[in-house]
Amino acid sequence: MLTATDPRTGRSLPQIAETTAAEFDDVLDAAVSAAHDPSFLDAGRRADMLRIAAARLRDRKVDILAAAERETGLPSGRLGGELERTCVQLEMLGEVARRGEHLEVIIDRADPDAQPIPRPDVRRMLIALGPVAVFGASNFPLAFSTAGGDTASALAAGCPVVVKGHPAHPQTGLIVAAVLAEAGRVAGLPAGAFGHVLAGGYELGEQLVDDDRIEAVAFTGSLRGGKAIAARAAARPRPIPVYAEMGSLNPVIITEAALQTRGEEIADGLVASVATFGGQLCTKPGVVLAPTGAAGDALCSALARRLADRAPEVLLTSAIAAGFAHGLTALQEVAGVERLTPPHESAQAGFRAAPALFRASLSALHEHVSLREEHFGPAVIVFGYGGEGELRDALTGLGGQLSAAVHAEPRDYDGLAWLVDLCARCAGRVVFNGYPTGVSVCWAMQHGGPYPASSQAGHTSVGMTATRRFLRPVAFQNAPAELLPLALRDGNPLGLWRRVNGKLTGSAAGQTELDRRPGVPRRSAAPPVAR
Amino acid sequence: MLTATDPRTGRSLPQIAETTAAEFDDVLDAAVSAAHDPSFLDAGRRADMLRIAAARLRDRKVDILAAAERETGLPSGRLGGELERTCVQLEMLGEVARRGEHLEVIIDRADPDAQPIPRPDVRRMLIALGPVAVFGASNFPLAFSTAGGDTASALAAGCPVVVKGHPAHPQTGLIVAAVLAEAGRVAGLPAGAFGHVLAGGYELGEQLVDDDRIEAVAFTGSLRGGKAIAARAAARPRPIPVYAEMGSLNPVIITEAALQTRGEEIADGLVASVATFGGQLCTKPGVVLAPTGAAGDALCSALARRLADRAPEVLLTSAIAAGFAHGLTALQEVAGVERLTPPHESAQAGFRAAPALFRASLSALHEHVSLREEHFGPAVIVFGYGGEGELRDALTGLGGQLSAAVHAEPRDYDGLAWLVDLCARCAGRVVFNGYPTGVSVCWAMQHGGPYPASSQAGHTSVGMTATRRFLRPVAFQNAPAELLPLALRDGNPLGLWRRVNGKLTGSAAGQTELDRRPGVPRRSAAPPVAR
Repeated sequence: MLTATDPRTGRSLPQIAETTAAEFDDVLDAAVSAAHDPSFLDAGRRADMLRIAAARLRDRKVDILAAAERETGLPSGRLGGELERTCVQLEMLGEVARRGEHLEVIIDRADPDAQPIPRPDVRRMLIALGPVAVFGASNFPLAFSTAGGDTASALAAGCPVVVKGHPAHPQTGLIVAAVLAEAGRVAGLPAGAFGHVLAGGYELGEQLVDDDRIEAVAFTGSLRGGKAIAARAAARPRPIPVYAEMGSLNPVIITEAALQTRGEEIADGLVASVATFGGQLCTKPGVVLAPTGAAGDALCSALARRLADRAPEVLLTSAIAAGFAHGLTALQEVAGVERLTPPHESAQAGFRAAPALFRASLSALHEHVSLREEHFGPAVIVFGYGGEGELRDALTGLGGQLSAAVHAEPRDYDGLAWLVDLCARCAGRVVFNGYPTGVSVCWAMQHGGPYPASSQAGHTSVGMTATRRFLRPVAFQNAPAELLPLALRDGNPLGLWRRVNGKLTGSAAGQTELDRRPGVPRRSAAPPVAR
Repeated sequence: MLTATDPRTGRSLPQIAETTAAEFDDVLDAAVSAAHDPSFLDAGRRADMLRIAAARLRDRKVDILAAAERETGLPSGRLGGELERTCVQLEMLGEVARRGEHLEVIIDRADPDAQPIPRPDVRRMLIALGPVAVFGASNFPLAFSTAGGDTASALAAGCPVVVKGHPAHPQTGLIVAAVLAEAGRVAGLPAGAFGHVLAGGYELGEQLVDDDRIEAVAFTGSLRGGKAIAARAAARPRPIPVYAEMGSLNPVIITEAALQTRGEEIADGLVASVATFGGQLCTKPGVVLAPTGAAGDALCSALARRLADRAPEVLLTSAIAAGFAHGLTALQEVAGVERLTPPHESAQAGFRAAPALFRASLSALHEHVSLREEHFGPAVIVFGYGGEGELRDALTGLGGQLSAAVHAEPRDYDGLAWLVDLCARCAGRVVFNGYPTGVSVCWAMQHGGPYPASSQAGHTSVGMTATRRFLRPVAFQNAPAELLPLALRDGNPLGLWRRVNGKLTGSAAGQTELDRRPGVPRRSAAPPVAR
């Protein structure tokens, strides 16, 4: 049995049953069987499932928010927004699948004159990998958990999903899992489209990563957790890809001009980004790079005042609270690091931590690894930089990031290209005159970044291109028309954008220059390739 | 010093100097410096370099072919075709870079009404990873080596390349490396755009994979070599992606109808595909699945006759010859495996092997791993299948493949969808009524496949999308117009296809609906982001 805790009180919540070995096996067998089920390969049905799931999650809002609030201590307003984001993700990714936008179709027609050898007819599309294991995050019990972006993008891509429920919010996970399973049934999908397994310890998750029936893993969590899963997946007889999003320092770089023009406003924004929801966001700014001197000093004072005024924040679990406290203790012991907020203890029950501001020297940054590690919780370190060279060294020294933010004024812009370039080299997302928290769900979003921010910087866990993680290309060479997947057929029956002989082409009517080729495809059993 | 061997005679070729530690360090420093050099970030200049390299490789054809023939034993005609393919690859990938087709630009304009939070302006493109280490293959001294597809696609993507020259064809590699370096100079690129290091042992390659200045590795070779490199790269403090293409069995599936209609023609095609160039191709068919009974027996006889008639083939190296001989000996010891060609020894000098045909039972396939392993050289195993169930089990049992080929007649097609689907699940490319060897260089080509065919089935090492391996997405959020890379600016100054607010758009004039947005970008120093 599994017991979660209300982090606001420290009290145990009702016990919940863990998945048995027989149940685990059934869930995985069902996932494999769903992967090749014709109804599951129908993208329209999968889109229906995601749309129905979104509607039903909204219907269950009261129950879901009550469970999530109890299990995470996050405020109801935030959880309501997170639920809506989760629903929007499901709907948007379902529409991507329905329209076939994720298939990246490429068609090269035969060319007998190609050099050095004649070219056959080659048609390529992306197909689904198969069952995907999803490990949700404790800090986003909805948007990065059971029905979160990983689940939505894997299902959109055509992969059955097996979620390893997070033991910190098991009841929330069970409600959401039941909604997903029911949505699959209503959409006419096989039971294995979505599976859910639950346990308090690590073993079940390890078993899931090791299982030959799993084809890919998506994970959001700590660097330690992500590394362990990646190592495990690589050690399988048949290694599989792991897309681990493992957190980040999310440096915020502020110019002298920006501080002079809107120092107080920046302090307000930073404090909100650092401390809201206990600072427990992958994109929380953990490091600020500000100019040394009066303007930087004023920023530190403004931040210290605002952070000291905030009540201690509820943290998600006792392990996170202990890790946070331990990290700050280690930080304070480093020479060149100064704590600017009082280290007051909370007298309240549950797991809480006061927001913490540190100031440190760049030499400390370069010497001590603890200054380059994420402190998951409401803490931020301000480093002063003396000029371009120091700023460059500092940013480079911080390593790979999910995001980097730049606060600058228009009068800075002429000399800022190098900094933008450096930020792009260090991070997956460069934010201007804003804060990295509040990740927008859209086509262009990139949530991922150079190691250790994520295990595969070439991909994203948020946004419409998140599907790409669960797909791989297949080329069909000289295939008879009737044996081609519909997406690749002459006449463009699915009305897709396709790259034909090197050029993108497509139209609402679904006609392309391929139609000039003689011969109309016969009706026949097209291979049920995932689309 | 490094000594290669003429495999036709077994005689040593003149000694060649290995790279010193100081040279190695200089090459890597130069690569890092080139990665951020504005001239290297100019895709037009990189395209120039690739075009110039192609022209000069053609100019040096006589020298290159003489060296390659001496070092590989491959016939001059084949090497001439391979050189032309190499040049075409360089030119085509250069044009991809010049046109910016690889940038995958996505733009989402700000939307204050988005739910659950207002959407900022988010613009995403792919940027280059940085210096790439390329390990060439012994069997393609040109097209998969120094100036091969990995080098061409990494340079096209905007990554400097450091080639670890293959010790079996060092002189060929040196000539080609000199041409590439000179092409870079003529195109106005920094010296670090292309570097070349050479050694006989493994240590230099290991050092290259371990070096923190390298951001990705491309490898073509054996499963053992690919696994070792992948494990090394994963064990780095900062792991990097390894794109290893590690060979395959490339099963050819033949229906009864196809054998009846054109059995002799299929035998001709198979023999050419199995034995030409010593069968030393990643896509050589190593396994044939043919129906049991008279038609299958006739195919075996036809193959045996043709293969027995061929002279022993020259193999590339003594290690390959020894490995091939050892593999066949192990094969013959398996119960249920029968050799159908005489095991005649060659009296000629050098490294040679007679083409070998085996017939084996499906039960042997499922029981003995040696029947599921690649035999690199002119060998093929025919398995007889009794029906759909046996064929399905056999294909599934073979594991991940670069390719799978199907020979069938139109009267088979109505019942063939399941087989096409299964082939797509097992392989990166499905070939119809043809042979997997002779990989066409085009947009749609997929050369890669489920493990162990390649380490990352989501990518290809041949074709225009090979660039994607060396790129990662970066999103710019609310960026001032003048700080955006040109590819992302309003007005579409580079004339790219871009996904704007979810829809692909683009035109020759480079205008998009974004132009309706007020405000013209100012002239300024755009960040030199790779494109």
